[in-house]
Amino acid sequence: MNNQVAILLLSCPDRIGLVSRISHFVFERGGNILDLDEHVDTSEKYFFVRIAWDMKNFSISESEMMEAFTPLAKEFKAKWRINFSGKNLRAAVFVSKFDHCLQEILWRQRLGEFNIEIPLIISNHNDLKPLAEHYGIPYYFYPVTPENKTEQEKKELALLKENQIDVIVLARYMQILSGQFVDEYPNGIINIHHSFLPAFSGNDPYRQAYDRGVKIIGATSHYVTKELDDGPIIEQDIIRITHKDTVNDLIRKGRDLERLILARALYYHSQHRVLIHGRKTIIFD
Amino acid sequence: MNNQVAILLLSCPDRIGLVSRISHFVFERGGNILDLDEHVDTSEKYFFVRIAWDMKNFSISESEMMEAFTPLAKEFKAKWRINFSGKNLRAAVFVSKFDHCLQEILWRQRLGEFNIEIPLIISNHNDLKPLAEHYGIPYYFYPVTPENKTEQEKKELALLKENQIDVIVLARYMQILSGQFVDEYPNGIINIHHSFLPAFSGNDPYRQAYDRGVKIIGATSHYVTKELDDGPIIEQDIIRITHKDTVNDLIRKGRDLERLILARALYYHSQHRVLIHGRKTIIFD
Amino acid sequence: MNNQVAILLLSCPDRIGLVSRISHFVFERGGNILDLDEHVDTSEKYFFVRIAWDMKNFSISESEMMEAFTPLAKEFKAKWRINFSGKNLRAAVFVSKFDHCLQEILWRQRLGEFNIEIPLIISNHNDLKPLAEHYGIPYYFYPVTPENKTEQEKKELALLKENQIDVIVLARYMQILSGQFVDEYPNGIINIHHSFLPAFSGNDPYRQAYDRGVKIIGATSHYVTKELDDGPIIEQDIIRITHKDTVNDLIRKGRDLERLILARALYYHSQHRVLIHGRKTIIFD
Amino acid sequence: MNNQVAILLLSCPDRIGLVSRISHFVFERGGNILDLDEHVDTSEKYFFVRIAWDMKNFSISESEMMEAFTPLAKEFKAKWRINFSGKNLRAAVFVSKFDHCLQEILWRQRLGEFNIEIPLIISNHNDLKPLAEHYGIPYYFYPVTPENKTEQEKKELALLKENQIDVIVLARYMQILSGQFVDEYPNGIINIHHSFLPAFSGNDPYRQAYDRGVKIIGATSHYVTKELDDGPIIEQDIIRITHKDTVNDLIRKGRDLERLILARALYYHSQHRVLIHGRKTIIFD
Repeated sequence: MNNQVAILLLSCPDRIGLVSRISHFVFERGGNILDLDEHVDTSEKYFFVRIAWDMKNFSISESEMMEAFTPLAKEFKAKWRINFSGKNLRAAVFVSKFDHCLQEILWRQRLGEFNIEIPLIISNHNDLKPLAEHYGIPYYFYPVTPENKTEQEKKELALLKENQIDVIVLARYMQILSGQFVDEYPNGIINIHHSFLPAFSGNDPYRQAYDRGVKIIGATSHYVTKELDDGPIIEQDIIRITHKDTVNDLIRKGRDLERLILARALYYHSQHRVLIHGRKTIIFD
Repeated sequence: MNNQVAILLLSCPDRIGLVSRISHFVFERGGNILDLDEHVDTSEKYFFVRIAWDMKNFSISESEMMEAFTPLAKEFKAKWRINFSGKNLRAAVFVSKFDHCLQEILWRQRLGEFNIEIPLIISNHNDLKPLAEHYGIPYYFYPVTPENKTEQEKKELALLKENQIDVIVLARYMQILSGQFVDEYPNGIINIHHSFLPAFSGNDPYRQAYDRGVKIIGATSHYVTKELDDGPIIEQDIIRITHKDTVNDLIRKGRDLERLILARALYYHSQHRVLIHGRKTIIFD
Repeated sequence: MNNQVAILLLSCPDRIGLVSRISHFVFERGGNILDLDEHVDTSEKYFFVRIAWDMKNFSISESEMMEAFTPLAKEFKAKWRINFSGKNLRAAVFVSKFDHCLQEILWRQRLGEFNIEIPLIISNHNDLKPLAEHYGIPYYFYPVTPENKTEQEKKELALLKENQIDVIVLARYMQILSGQFVDEYPNGIINIHHSFLPAFSGNDPYRQAYDRGVKIIGATSHYVTKELDDGPIIEQDIIRITHKDTVNDLIRKGRDLERLILARALYYHSQHRVLIHGRKTIIFD
Repeated sequence: MNNQVAILLLSCPDRIGLVSRISHFVFERGGNILDLDEHVDTSEKYFFVRIAWDMKNFSISESEMMEAFTPLAKEFKAKWRINFSGKNLRAAVFVSKFDHCLQEILWRQRLGEFNIEIPLIISNHNDLKPLAEHYGIPYYFYPVTPENKTEQEKKELALLKENQIDVIVLARYMQILSGQFVDEYPNGIINIHHSFLPAFSGNDPYRQAYDRGVKIIGATSHYVTKELDDGPIIEQDIIRITHKDTVNDLIRKGRDLERLILARALYYHSQHRVLIHGRKTIIFD
C-alpha cells in the first residue's frame, strides 16, 4: 500500500490535447488527481502544468514512472520531472552573521512546514554555530578571502555532493558565489535580496532606499544566476515606511520581510510548485 | 469560423477520472483548452472545475453543447453550466444616493473590463439619474416605503424579466430586498457591505467600527441570501485606519474599498469564475 | 467671527525650544492648536513641523500673520509658509488620452475630498473634452510636436499664470515638460508614474515589469524635477500580480493603483501635509 | 551626564495652550524635544500627547520630575505618566503549548528591539521549557484545572509581584484569566487573539473563519479586560486566504500573523507609544 503523492511538473510548446492526454495517463493507471493547475502563455504559445495524484491504487511503481512517461514527454518535446511526496529535498543553508533567516527556516522545518531535510549549514563566519547546534544540524565553517575563494568553493561543492544536496538556500549569505559554483546548481540556489528588485540591486539596499526617499521597502527571493540579483523571481513582498524611519529602522522592518519571503520561496520550491521559464517563474500556489 | 470561448463550470462528488474524462470530452471534439483550474475539497470529497476552451475548430455548435455534455454530467451527478464568451451577461444595477459604486461599474464597463451589458439602473431615489444619463443608460425610479414595498418589488421584477436580466448588482442600494425577491434570483444578486464581514453586519458599520476602535476597516462583496449579510462571500479587502480617523474619514476611506471590491466581485462573476458551494465560494482567479 | 484654520509648515536646523516657542506664538495670540506633528531628522539635525490652529479667537488677522511670524522664522533660519483652510489651492490638470486619473480627481474634487479648485484642464489631445464638459471645466487643447513644444509651453504657462494656478497635476500626461517649464513651478508639479520607482523609470514600465517577471507592480506619485522620474516621492503603493497576468492585465490592474496614488498625493498636497527636504518628502498624515 | 530620554504620556480634556505650556515646561528646564505627537479627539474634546526629550542638560533629575510636573497635571485634570528610556519594563510571558509567539518575543528581545526585560515565563504546560532554557529565562510551571485555578492564580500573582512585573504578555496562553487576576494589572496584560476582532471572538476562530468562507483572516492584539476578547485593540493585521486553504492552512498562515502582531503591540507598549482612552487606544507610532 502506497501513501505517496506523485507531482508532475511539465512545460512544452502548446498544442491541442495536452491536458486530456496527460490526465488520461494518470487515469488509466488508476491515479486520482488531487490537484491540477495549468497555465498557457498565449504570447509564447507555451504550456505549463503541475499535476498531483495519489499513488495508492496506481498500477506502476515510482521506479517505473520515468520510463512510462518518457514517450509522452518526448512527443510533447517537454521539460519535465516527477517528484514523490515521501522523498524530501535535501537543502544546505548558507549563512554569514545574521540569524533571522536561518532561524526562520530551521523553526519552520522543525514544524514540518517544508518538505525538506537540512543535513548541513555552511558559513563564512562562526557566529551562528550555537543556533545550528540548538537544532542539531552540522555547521561547517569556510572563511572566504579573495585569495582562497576558489579553493573554498571547491571544498564546499565536494561537501554538498557528498551530502546529495538538492537545493542551496542563501539565508543572507554575504558572499557572491562564482559562476563555476552557480553552474553546478542551475535553478537550485535560492537567494533573498533585501530590496524590491530590480530596484536597489547590489550593496546596501536599505541605505539606497533611505537615500532615495521611497515610501515602501521590499524583499525579493530569486534563483541565483551568474548575473547578480538578476535571476528568476520566486516571491516578493513589501512593507510601508515613513520619513520617521532611519536606516536602522529599515533594517529592523526589513528583517521581517526577508525571513518571511525567503521562507515562502522555499515553501513553493519544496512543494514542487515552481516552474522556471527563461527569466520568469510560474508559481502554482 | 467561431471565435468564441466556451467556459464550463462544474461541481460534483469527487471520483477518479473526472479531469481526464472532461478534458477528453473537449479534446475529442477538437477544442483547445485555454485555461483549466480545478479544486478538490478533501474534507467533503467534492470536486470543482472551470475549463475554458476555444470553439474555433470545435466539432459541435453552441446550441448542441447542452445535449452533448448532459450524459457525462448526469453520470457525475454534477451541477454545471456552460457559458460562451461572446454572450455577455445582462446586469441591472440598483442604487440609492451614493454614486461611487455606480460610477465605478459604469466606467469599467465602458472600458470593457466586464463581460456585461447594463440595460437598466433601478433606484429608490432620483439623485443618480444624471450619472445614468451621462452613460446613456435608462434609469427607473421606484421609491420604496414599508407600505408599497411588495408592490414596487413586483414592478421591479417585471422590469427585470422583461429585460432578461441575469444578475443584479446592489451598488450601495439602501433597501433590504424581500425573501420573495431574493428567491427569484438565487446566487444572482451581488451586494457590497461596507465592513469586513462577519464583523459589523447590519446598520452603520463604520460607526460600529469607530466605536470598537479597530485598526483596520474592510468591505465585503457577497451573494444575497434571505439572511442579511450572510450570503457566500465573493471578495473582501481592508484598509488601515488610525486613532486620527473620524467616522467621516472611515466613510471616505471606505468608499475606495467598496467600489473596488464590488467591481472585483462583478469581474469574477462576469468572467464565470465563481462557483458557489453551500455558504462558500470557489473563485477561479 | 473667523472659522478659518491656519496651517504652518516649517523646517529649520534643529535647536532647543522650537516647539515651545512656536506653540507659544500661537497660544499667546489666542489660537487653539488642533493638530501638531513634528519630526526631527537626527542624522541631519533638521527640524520639521506642521501646526494647525483655529483662527476663531486669534488676535491677529490672516493678513497680519506674515509680518508677525517673520521675526521668529528669521531667528530660526526657517523655510516656512502659512496657509488658511478657506483659501483653496488652484490646480490645473494636464492629461493626454487616458481618463482614469482625471476622472478620479474630478469626482473626488466634487465630493469635497480635496481643498482645491480646478479652473482648467490642459491636454495635447482632444479625447477627454467630454469628461471635462461633464464636470463643467474649461478644456484647453495644445497639441505638442518636437517643433512647436517650446512655443506651446509658453502659451500654457501664460494660461496658468493668468489663472493663478498653484499646482499642476500630471494625470498621465504623456509629454515630458521642459526644464524651463519645470523651473516655473518648483515643487508645484505632481506626476504619477506607473511603476514602483526607482524600478522601471522611463517608457513602458508595465512591459518592463512583465519582462522582468516581478510578482508585484507599483505606482509612484512624485514632484517633478528636471531629471525624469527622479523628484521627491510623495506616495507609492503596490498590487500583486502572477504569471497569469499579461501586459494588458498589468495595465488594467495598474490603472487602479495609478488613480488612487495620484489622488492620495494630491490630497496630502492640498491639505498642506507635505514638506520637501532635498530629494525627500516629509508627509504629515 | 545623563543620556536618558524622558517620555511623557498625557491625556486630559482639551483646552487652549496645552502644547505650549507642556513644551514650555520642558524648554525652561533645558530639555530638547526629540519627538512630539499629539491628538485631539474633536468629538469628545479630549487631548492626548506623547513628548520625548533628552535629559542631557535637563535641570532637574528623574526623581524630581514627578513633583515638578504634578501642578501642571493637576491644573489640566490629566492622566499622565513619565518613563525614562534607561529603565526597561519588566515583562512576564504566559504560554501554553504553541512556541511561535514566545520564540518571536525572545528572539526580538535579544536583538534589542524591545525596551523590556523578561525575568520569567509562566506556563500551564511544560512543553516550552527547553525554549526558555535556550534563552536562559526561568520557566514556571502552573498546571491549571477548574478546581485549582484560584489557587494557582494567587501563586502566579505572588511571583509576578515578587519580580516587579510591569506587563504580562499572553503569548497564546490557552487559559482565561479570572476577573480578580485582570484587576491586578489594569491595562497591563497584552493578549493576541487569532482573528480579526470583533469577528470570530471566542473558541477556534480559524475553524469559524473557515466555516464562514471569508477571504481574509486576521489577528488582533489587545489589552485584556474582564470581558473576553473585548479590550482596547492595539494592533491588527490580515492575510489573504483562498478556497484552497484548509483549516490547517489557516493555522499555518495565521501563525505568522499572530507572532508579528503580538510583537508589534509589545513594541508599541514597551516604547510607551500607547495611550488608552475608554475602549480605544491612541498609538503614537
